[in-house]
Amino acid sequence: MHITRYTDYSLRVLVYLASQGDELSTIQQISESYDISRNHLMKVVHQLNKKGYIETVRGKKGGMRLRLSPADINIGVLIRETENELGVVECLTGNNSCRIAPVCGLKGMFSEAMQAFLETLDKYTLADVIPSAHRPQLLRLLQVN
Amino acid sequence: MHITRYTDYSLRVLVYLASQGDELSTIQQISESYDISRNHLMKVVHQLNKKGYIETVRGKKGGMRLRLSPADINIGVLIRETENELGVVECLTGNNSCRIAPVCGLKGMFSEAMQAFLETLDKYTLADVIPSAHRPQLLRLLQVN
Repeated sequence: MHITRYTDYSLRVLVYLASQGDELSTIQQISESYDISRNHLMKVVHQLNKKGYIETVRGKKGGMRLRLSPADINIGVLIRETENELGVVECLTGNNSCRIAPVCGLKGMFSEAMQAFLETLDKYTLADVIPSAHRPQLLRLLQVN
Repeated sequence: MHITRYTDYSLRVLVYLASQGDELSTIQQISESYDISRNHLMKVVHQLNKKGYIETVRGKKGGMRLRLSPADINIGVLIRETENELGVVECLTGNNSCRIAPVCGLKGMFSEAMQAFLETLDKYTLADVIPSAHRPQLLRLLQVN
């Protein structure tokens, strides 16, 4: 079981931007810091902008920063928005072909388990991901030499 | 987020065998009932046998059945055994390349969330998946015409 790369990269972008405070960052910088594909990041950034998590400034000195305070970005809510498929099992997706689904209790069990998973993440915000005491070390780790 | 096909098929095989009580079943029958690949099932059955969930009887009238009572097959334990990767995020797998992992709180949050997921499934056994009142309907659904 894995979250999608899309969710993974969304989290990384938000953590990066949280580390920069009000400073603007570029896709290029984020891509180099994490050593991940610029192309994949473009789609992620587009969606984060559309969903109101970040704001972008156009132009030569442009870039992006968080639109919300890290304490206002809930991890559970974010995962629900970025994971397009939280079904876990086929019978919980829109694509079920398992013929015993009408009588099988697994559906309810996995649904309850996924609820517990998400409710755990609901307890946390982006501010908890990188407590301010860790910010200097985070900035060092993100620095590309 | 999805369980692997391997886990999915393991669950389906166990549900099928639970529905048959002491009767022997063949891979062919299970494959036809769920309309899933015989080849994939062979690997699944081999592992379920190796892990002690089922027993196989060789020969012309051979087949397999549960070795344990459905009430003794815990769903959480089964998932831990069949999902080879419960890491959810890269930094929880053996394959981490995210450079901020040493200071990033997401690792702990996702680990806690996965724990909550598994603990929910720990509450259930195979006997809960198909309560005996549903068995007649289950048998009808599994019947290949």
